[in-house]
Amino acid sequence: MASESENGNCNAWAARDPSGVLSPYKFNRSWFSGSIFIASSYVSCYGIIFRAVQSGDVSLKITHCGVCYADVIWTQNKHNDSIYPLVPGHEIAGVVTEVGSDVKGFKVGDHVGVGTYVNSCRACENCNSSLENYCPKSVFTFNRIDTDGTITKGGYSTHIVVHERYCFKIPDGYPLAKAAPLLCAGITVYTPMVRHNMNQPGKSLGVIGLGGLGHMAVKFGKAFGLKVTVFSTSESKRDEAISVLGADNFVISSNTQQMESLKNSLHFIVDTASGDHPFDPYLSLLKVGGVMAVVCFPSEIKIHPASLNVGGRTLSGSIVGGTKDIQEMVNFCAANKIYPEIEIIKIDYINEALRRLVNRDVKYRFVIDIENSF
Amino acid sequence: MASESENGNCNAWAARDPSGVLSPYKFNRSWFSGSIFIASSYVSCYGIIFRAVQSGDVSLKITHCGVCYADVIWTQNKHNDSIYPLVPGHEIAGVVTEVGSDVKGFKVGDHVGVGTYVNSCRACENCNSSLENYCPKSVFTFNRIDTDGTITKGGYSTHIVVHERYCFKIPDGYPLAKAAPLLCAGITVYTPMVRHNMNQPGKSLGVIGLGGLGHMAVKFGKAFGLKVTVFSTSESKRDEAISVLGADNFVISSNTQQMESLKNSLHFIVDTASGDHPFDPYLSLLKVGGVMAVVCFPSEIKIHPASLNVGGRTLSGSIVGGTKDIQEMVNFCAANKIYPEIEIIKIDYINEALRRLVNRDVKYRFVIDIENSF
Repeated sequence: MASESENGNCNAWAARDPSGVLSPYKFNRSWFSGSIFIASSYVSCYGIIFRAVQSGDVSLKITHCGVCYADVIWTQNKHNDSIYPLVPGHEIAGVVTEVGSDVKGFKVGDHVGVGTYVNSCRACENCNSSLENYCPKSVFTFNRIDTDGTITKGGYSTHIVVHERYCFKIPDGYPLAKAAPLLCAGITVYTPMVRHNMNQPGKSLGVIGLGGLGHMAVKFGKAFGLKVTVFSTSESKRDEAISVLGADNFVISSNTQQMESLKNSLHFIVDTASGDHPFDPYLSLLKVGGVMAVVCFPSEIKIHPASLNVGGRTLSGSIVGGTKDIQEMVNFCAANKIYPEIEIIKIDYINEALRRLVNRDVKYRFVIDIENSF
Repeated sequence: MASESENGNCNAWAARDPSGVLSPYKFNRSWFSGSIFIASSYVSCYGIIFRAVQSGDVSLKITHCGVCYADVIWTQNKHNDSIYPLVPGHEIAGVVTEVGSDVKGFKVGDHVGVGTYVNSCRACENCNSSLENYCPKSVFTFNRIDTDGTITKGGYSTHIVVHERYCFKIPDGYPLAKAAPLLCAGITVYTPMVRHNMNQPGKSLGVIGLGGLGHMAVKFGKAFGLKVTVFSTSESKRDEAISVLGADNFVISSNTQQMESLKNSLHFIVDTASGDHPFDPYLSLLKVGGVMAVVCFPSEIKIHPASLNVGGRTLSGSIVGGTKDIQEMVNFCAANKIYPEIEIIKIDYINEALRRLVNRDVKYRFVIDIENSF
């Protein structure tokens, strides 16, 4: 839905090479046909072919975009698959400006969010189970080839057009700036918690890492009525974990005595630690039948089989969530007044923000005020 | 319940050192008090203190004992915790000869089995959930210190006395020789299959390794109405897997083309391969939400996190099963005429049998005819 032009209709910031440095950029997004008849859905504009908005699409003015570690990965080409210029951002919140003729779920003026994917095949087993996040043809919100052949461009931009299936209603009164991080950080930890029945009061939750994802896991845990233990490498996070986020317990993971005292005590651990780390010490903290959810991306996972089989334990992978789960999670946050802790920035601070994110110097999510940045 | 004496009341074969070579051995097991009043439950016999049979105990004449790879591990001290003389064997079948005054579930003449553990605390969360196999104080059937301080001795012996909780009824007509391997090999694969809802017809099962455990997984899979694919390193097992065991598909795991064709197709894999092997290629065969059950003991499990999280997949550990599951599994085998494939041997063949077991030269379980060996 996007094509490049320095005279395009969409303002953005893009990385141009693996330095990852972002700078102002313009490109063409789909635009709305309104009442004008278009013979073909593919038309030429400024000499470049791109897709016109379809009848099922929603167009939104982006007001805010969260800054995710994925933005660092792809602006800096860490997976060797970056396509420049690259407009990152997949925690998008905004206001509906137009809807296609077949759109049923949204109207102009609605507050909406868009997450980590903007398309899928809509026909496979996963799509039919509202697990579009696992559709083999799902299209990430940026740096992927969409079904129309264009390269997707993310939320560091002024507007976006997506099919309504990949668009989520932000309930009235929920601040759009706070809504943005729900679309990746929030759903990433919410999905495995609910899937493994951790929305049952009284159970015990461990959270490894206290960044964008981890701090949301603590908030969900407390909202579900769980006893929450935060594992961190840094003593400096203790006060915030307990007093601001409401964790019940804070453990320095290198303290073997503290770790030992928690053996066989936890129902569930959500592992959000971004770097390489051992897994056996955490698995040993799980009760029989306990589950450790892997939502992180270390370079490798190494475990002793006894950590799993002798203890009757499980290591379970999860990545973001399906469309049904995302809307459920957003509604749950609104109903329970769960708000991410954010630091709002303007787009011209983004390079410094990404540098600070890499250095883990953010409490707990940067959100770009797109509306007031362009 | 056992103490050592060359003049003991129990005939057995024992390993004497890490060579693992077994030879005839005698020791004292608990004996039944019958109608004789015993003032203390601890009495002296042949100058050695050992526990008298308790009111909740069942005494059985052992007729058969399966030969498990665990017998190799501990007779050869591979875990550096073997206590010699060591009497192995934890797939025990036999006939009840006496029952204690409080025993409710068994009577003299009943056919019964004893599996991999003979005691547990009977009070913890796991015991209270019929997961005695995960009780921190569970006592393995051999080479462990029982609650009375004696070293447990296994089923390569003529009789055994256990609390009725750890004793299982073998239904009439089910051959005792065939029942023996159910108590470890059978329950080890049955438990994770049922726990992960693989007893639902139409689902797809992968079985890695076709030994004592793997061949039972195939049989359970077919009884549950599953489509079963066997993964093996050896082409020589193809015919047996398909024609004798009834597998639907046979794949040589080194054949990347065959492996590729199965990507994202399986609901569940049970990994019974004893040696070190890669995990990522198998995980990639699972559907979203699919589970790979680890019942094997490689030296290490190494996986790429994407194998779990990008695919929404799970690696789940399991070891044998709880008492309720064991009885359910035995009943299921009897009702569905599921019988392990066995090679019956006499005890004086045991050293050769263990050598053949190490060389994977058995279809698919040795069972010692204890009754006719002493």
